[in-house]
Amino acid sequence: MNVVVGQSGGPTAVINASLAGVFEAAVKLGADKVYGMQNGISGFLQEKLILLNDLLGDTMQIELLKRTPACFLGSCRHKLKSAEQNEEEYKKIFEILTKYEIDCFFYIGGNDSMDTVAKLSAYGKKIGSSVRFVGVPKMIDNDLTETDHTPGYGSAAKFVATTMKELVCDSTIYDLYSVTIVEIMGRNAGWLTAASALAKGEDCDGVDLIYLPETPFTLDGFFEKLSAKLKEKKSLVIAVSEGIKLPDGRYVCELASENQKEDVFGHKQLTGTALFLAGECANRLKIKARAIEFSTLQRCASHIASLTDIEEAYEVGAGAVQAAVDGKSGVATVFVRASENPYRCEIGVREIDKIANQEKTVPLEWIDTENMGLTEEYLAYARPLIQGELTPIFEKGLPKHLYRK
Amino acid sequence: MNVVVGQSGGPTAVINASLAGVFEAAVKLGADKVYGMQNGISGFLQEKLILLNDLLGDTMQIELLKRTPACFLGSCRHKLKSAEQNEEEYKKIFEILTKYEIDCFFYIGGNDSMDTVAKLSAYGKKIGSSVRFVGVPKMIDNDLTETDHTPGYGSAAKFVATTMKELVCDSTIYDLYSVTIVEIMGRNAGWLTAASALAKGEDCDGVDLIYLPETPFTLDGFFEKLSAKLKEKKSLVIAVSEGIKLPDGRYVCELASENQKEDVFGHKQLTGTALFLAGECANRLKIKARAIEFSTLQRCASHIASLTDIEEAYEVGAGAVQAAVDGKSGVATVFVRASENPYRCEIGVREIDKIANQEKTVPLEWIDTENMGLTEEYLAYARPLIQGELTPIFEKGLPKHLYRK
Repeated sequence: MNVVVGQSGGPTAVINASLAGVFEAAVKLGADKVYGMQNGISGFLQEKLILLNDLLGDTMQIELLKRTPACFLGSCRHKLKSAEQNEEEYKKIFEILTKYEIDCFFYIGGNDSMDTVAKLSAYGKKIGSSVRFVGVPKMIDNDLTETDHTPGYGSAAKFVATTMKELVCDSTIYDLYSVTIVEIMGRNAGWLTAASALAKGEDCDGVDLIYLPETPFTLDGFFEKLSAKLKEKKSLVIAVSEGIKLPDGRYVCELASENQKEDVFGHKQLTGTALFLAGECANRLKIKARAIEFSTLQRCASHIASLTDIEEAYEVGAGAVQAAVDGKSGVATVFVRASENPYRCEIGVREIDKIANQEKTVPLEWIDTENMGLTEEYLAYARPLIQGELTPIFEKGLPKHLYRK
Repeated sequence: MNVVVGQSGGPTAVINASLAGVFEAAVKLGADKVYGMQNGISGFLQEKLILLNDLLGDTMQIELLKRTPACFLGSCRHKLKSAEQNEEEYKKIFEILTKYEIDCFFYIGGNDSMDTVAKLSAYGKKIGSSVRFVGVPKMIDNDLTETDHTPGYGSAAKFVATTMKELVCDSTIYDLYSVTIVEIMGRNAGWLTAASALAKGEDCDGVDLIYLPETPFTLDGFFEKLSAKLKEKKSLVIAVSEGIKLPDGRYVCELASENQKEDVFGHKQLTGTALFLAGECANRLKIKARAIEFSTLQRCASHIASLTDIEEAYEVGAGAVQAAVDGKSGVATVFVRASENPYRCEIGVREIDKIANQEKTVPLEWIDTENMGLTEEYLAYARPLIQGELTPIFEKGLPKHLYRK
C-alpha cells in the first residue's frame, strides 16, 4: 500500500498534527511509501511528490511537526473545475496516482479542499478506480458542518482568549475613556470572534461587547450599546468579526472602502472593520480609540496551541487512514462529541458531499444580542477545546519547528 | 520605613515583575507599609493609595504578578511641569508624602517617568526633604541610555522573534509571489524591529528585509532590494519599524496620511506604515501583499515572556529599594553587562539626569544596510535577553493573572 497526503487552503496552528496522524497511522497500518504532495493538488499535478518516510521517520521529527504551524508540505488554493469542464486535469491526476501506485489519497483542508476530495472520489468511482479518497478537515473558522468542531479551532480560540485577557490588562491601565476594538477572522461565521468570550473569568472582566456576523450590525445600535457601557466603566475592549454585516448585507468595512476585491473562490478580501469603527468612535465620542487586528497571528500561534486540539488533529488524521484501510472513499473524518462531562470526542466518518461547500454558523440562540455576548451554552461547548498545552521545544530562546528546505 | 511605588507610561509584559521586586525587597529590608499608587503620579495626587502588604502578601500572588502583563497598579501619562511653572503640584505631592510618612518613592516607567523622578528628587533636595526618589526603568523600546538594555525589551523581542518564525511558516506555504510586511513598534529607535533578526536559524530562513528608523528609507531603495530578493525566492517577509523615515525626516506613514496627531508628550501617533507599503507592493508589483501590525500584542504577551527578562525586571526593582536604603535619591537602577559568555548583568545605579529625556538608538555599525539586516554583534547582544520561559499558570485553559478589582 502506498499513500499520498496533501495540505490545502489556509494554514492553522495544528494542521501539521493531522499530517503527523496520517503519516504515523499509514506506517502503522502497513503503508509502504507515504508521499507528501508539495503545495497540495497544484503540486501533485506537477508531480511534486516527496517521500515522507525519511523526513518524518523519527520521534523527534514528529514531535517538532506537531509544534510547527502552517503547512509543512506547502499549500495551494487551486479549485478543481468539474470533470465536465476540465477532464484533462482529472486524467492527469489519475495518471500520476497510477504511476506512483497510490492506493489512498488524503487531503487535509477546509471547505474548498473537501470539494476537491468530493470531485476526485466521484470521478474515481465513475472510471472504476480503486483509489480511496479521504478528507481530513482543518479550519480555524470552525464552520464545517457534520462535525462537532474543526481541528484548528481550539488553538485559534486559545490564542484569541489568551491574547484578549492580555489586551484587557493592557487596555484598562489608564484612568481615561478609551475603546479598543479588536478584529478577528471570520467571514460569515463568528466562531473565532465568539472565543473572545472565553477571556472572562475570576481574574478578567472580559470583553465588553462581541459582534458576530450572524446578527445584523448597525452603527446606531453599536453606539447605543457602547455609550451604555461607557457609563459603567471607562476602558472598553470590543471584539468584532471581520465579517460583520449591515442589515442590507454589506460588510461594515465596505462603509470605509467600497472597492473590495474577490479571491479565486469568490470571497471578498476583508480588512479594516476595526479601523473603521475605531475611527468612528474617535470622531463621534471624542475619546481614545484604537484598532487591533489579530490578523495572521491567530492562525499560526503554535506556541500557545491547545493540547486538546493538537491531539484531536492527530486523531482526525489517523482516523482518515483507518477509514481508507476499511475501504471507505469519498468521506471525511469528523468529531462526534461522545460525552460532555468529562469532555470526549470520537472520530466519525461522514460522506464528503455532506461537508463540502456547506457552512455552519454560530447558532443564534447562543448569541446574547441584549448584552452582545455569548451564552453559557457556547462557553460550555468551546471551553473543552482550548484545554491543555503542548510546551514548545525551545532552542536559543525560541520555539523550534520542523524545517523543510 | 514606609514606601510608595507607582507605574507609569506604556505597559510591558514584565513591568509587574519590577513591582514584585520592589515589594519583596522593601518588605525584606524592613518596610512597614508598602503603598501602591493607582494610576501613577496622577492617582497619587488624588491620594489614590492602596496598601500592597495584603494584596501581594503570599507567594502565589507574587508568582501570578510576575506573569501578569501591563500595570497592575494602573498607569498614567501625566507629565509634571517644572516646579517654576506649577509649584502647587509639587507641594501637594510632598504633603501627601508627609501625610503617609513615606520615606522612599519608587517609580517604574520609561523615559518620561524618569523625568518625573528627576523633577521630584530635585525639588525634594531644594526643600530639604529626606524622601528618596528612585526610578526603575521599563521599556519595550530599549531606548534608554546608561543601561545595557531595558526591562521589557527581552520579552517583547521574544514575542517578535517567536511570532516572526510562525509568520515565516505561514507566509511561505503557497507557490506564488507574495510579500508580508510586518510593522513593529519603535518611534525613533529600531530595537524592537531589530529583534525580528533573531528569528533566523537552522529551522527558519528568517525575515528577508529589516528596516529600522535609524537609517533613511526611500521607496525606490525599498523596491530595489525587494525586487532583488524576489529573484531569489517567491514569498518574502519584511519587518518595518513604525517609525521609518524618509531622507527629509518625514515618517513613511505620512506619505499615506499627512494628518498626524501628537500625544501629550509631543510624539506623533504612528500607524499604517506596513499598510501603506503593502499597498505600494500590490500596486507596483501586482503581487499578493499583506500588512500585519504587531500592535499592542508585542508589549503584553506575558504568556511568551522571557524568563531572563522577568528575573532582571524583578532585580532592577529590588535594586532600587536597596539604593534607597543605601541613602541614594535622584537615581535609577540600570543593567551593566558584567560578562558576555556566560551572559550576566549586574544592577547598577545611575544619576537620573543622565537617563531622563535621552534616547539610545541602535548603533549604526550594527545595521547591515547592504542586506537590510542586523549584524552578528546585534544578535550576540540580544540573544541572551530572550532566553528562558516562565511557564504561565494555566486555569481553564488560559494563563492566569493577578487581578485587582
